[in-house]
Amino acid sequence: MEEFSFIDWIRRQTARDPRVPVGPGDDCAVVAFGGRRVLVTTDQCGDGVHFVLAECGPEAAGYKVMARSLSDIAAMGGRPAGAVATVALPRGADEGLAQGLYRGLRRAGDPFDCPVVGGDVMAWDAPLLLTVTMLGEPIREPVLRSTARVGDAICVTGALGGSLASGRHLSFTPRLAESAKLVERCDLHAMIDLSDGLASDLGHICRESGVGARLIGAAIPLTAAARAAAEPLRAALTDGEDYELLFTLAPDQADRLLAEPPFATPIARIGTAVEGSGITLVDPAGQARPLGALGWRHRT
Amino acid sequence: MEEFSFIDWIRRQTARDPRVPVGPGDDCAVVAFGGRRVLVTTDQCGDGVHFVLAECGPEAAGYKVMARSLSDIAAMGGRPAGAVATVALPRGADEGLAQGLYRGLRRAGDPFDCPVVGGDVMAWDAPLLLTVTMLGEPIREPVLRSTARVGDAICVTGALGGSLASGRHLSFTPRLAESAKLVERCDLHAMIDLSDGLASDLGHICRESGVGARLIGAAIPLTAAARAAAEPLRAALTDGEDYELLFTLAPDQADRLLAEPPFATPIARIGTAVEGSGITLVDPAGQARPLGALGWRHRT
Repeated sequence: MEEFSFIDWIRRQTARDPRVPVGPGDDCAVVAFGGRRVLVTTDQCGDGVHFVLAECGPEAAGYKVMARSLSDIAAMGGRPAGAVATVALPRGADEGLAQGLYRGLRRAGDPFDCPVVGGDVMAWDAPLLLTVTMLGEPIREPVLRSTARVGDAICVTGALGGSLASGRHLSFTPRLAESAKLVERCDLHAMIDLSDGLASDLGHICRESGVGARLIGAAIPLTAAARAAAEPLRAALTDGEDYELLFTLAPDQADRLLAEPPFATPIARIGTAVEGSGITLVDPAGQARPLGALGWRHRT
Repeated sequence: MEEFSFIDWIRRQTARDPRVPVGPGDDCAVVAFGGRRVLVTTDQCGDGVHFVLAECGPEAAGYKVMARSLSDIAAMGGRPAGAVATVALPRGADEGLAQGLYRGLRRAGDPFDCPVVGGDVMAWDAPLLLTVTMLGEPIREPVLRSTARVGDAICVTGALGGSLASGRHLSFTPRLAESAKLVERCDLHAMIDLSDGLASDLGHICRESGVGARLIGAAIPLTAAARAAAEPLRAALTDGEDYELLFTLAPDQADRLLAEPPFATPIARIGTAVEGSGITLVDPAGQARPLGALGWRHRT
């Protein structure tokens, strides 16, 4: 089953509803309660899929699923308000496992004032599965995937690649502080968090916005883990789970942002939104090739 | 692991927060967004635990998990606003399975104007697990478990028992219409939906409210499935998954409600909240025995 074909199918089943300004397909949905717009995002992490419980322990697992949702709130230009969690525990698990998961949720949520307000626990004859659903509010307007414009600068926070190899996917800091500064300082046109990898996630922005992208390979910031990989640029483009922010804005706004960055986390301008569709990668020799032709896609 | 000891542990970890008027432990949490109060509830249903996929098919499974959340919104005196769902699919499942689940979610939500606004799909080497998180709003004040008063009449909608045996747990109608009428007509003191069974769920109201309860066995409405069971009253008290509303209110209000019921679903007055703690069951011969001594508890 193809995740995105299924999401497309769901979107075709979904009627426009004035109470749901943003429906399925972005980092968060937006539900209107009178004049208040509530962001909502949900994530699941399974043992053997998103973490290996026997290796990382319950607290890291709890941390990861909560941090992923916080990253989704950041990607909409929001601030979190609270989360609920469900835990399907392998039968026979002791209370220590459940408590460890909860401590992980709290270790992720507490620094961002995001309380755990409820949840559900069950036991079953299967591996651990954790879900978090988080509520939040947009700080200004929600920043969508679908509103990038031709000519926009494409920027990214932090450095990319090797998150699974280095273990960063279990301990990353969600970019909420950076997102808040960005929406206060700039008129962001589009934003997404990098969960599937730069190639896939920029692909979402392009597809939803009806634009293409020209990426400058040499400008893409690499982590130490990516630099140590056999193909560093490929790692940065396809490893996924970076949980950095990828955003677009007018080029003059990007110039100002890079000249006076409002936070310590690095920002890099890595490309430009162009007419057309698809992503073109410009290599250090100046040669431009369509990313699709390289077969560089998210691996799972 | 004991679910309720874990929830108690979580509640001890949870600081009072003015943004969270109702935290863990009720049918829904309440999160304040400025002057708007948002209800949020989350439920999970696993293959082999809450349904047997090979027997009931995906649409019934999707229906059940959505209907459970709708029932939680009803139990707070709320109206639903939207839901997100996560699906962990057994690897190799086809898109037909996911589409069937989605159709079930919609078949439950559509009659109550509760759209599916987002979600997440993953594949893994384990059985199907579905979660729904639902948002809503209280129609008036949220109706809690913790505010029953000594002297209250204890009432229930519908009839109880045999839900698993009869298959009703896969097709019940959440009592949202009834709940809306109840909160408009009456000053409900406490309410809960019957998911664990009358003995357990009335026990929650008693424990949270600091009251006891005197139940009149002969007044408890029995389904046909309960009447066919070896011990009908035991079935009504402990089978669970009735998804009826259990509520308390002043006796004169109960009299008026029963004299002029605002909906066709039957309402029965089954007992009285009393000083003390625990539940006493009065049998047809007039003999009163503590429910705890009968060993009648929720079975899972």
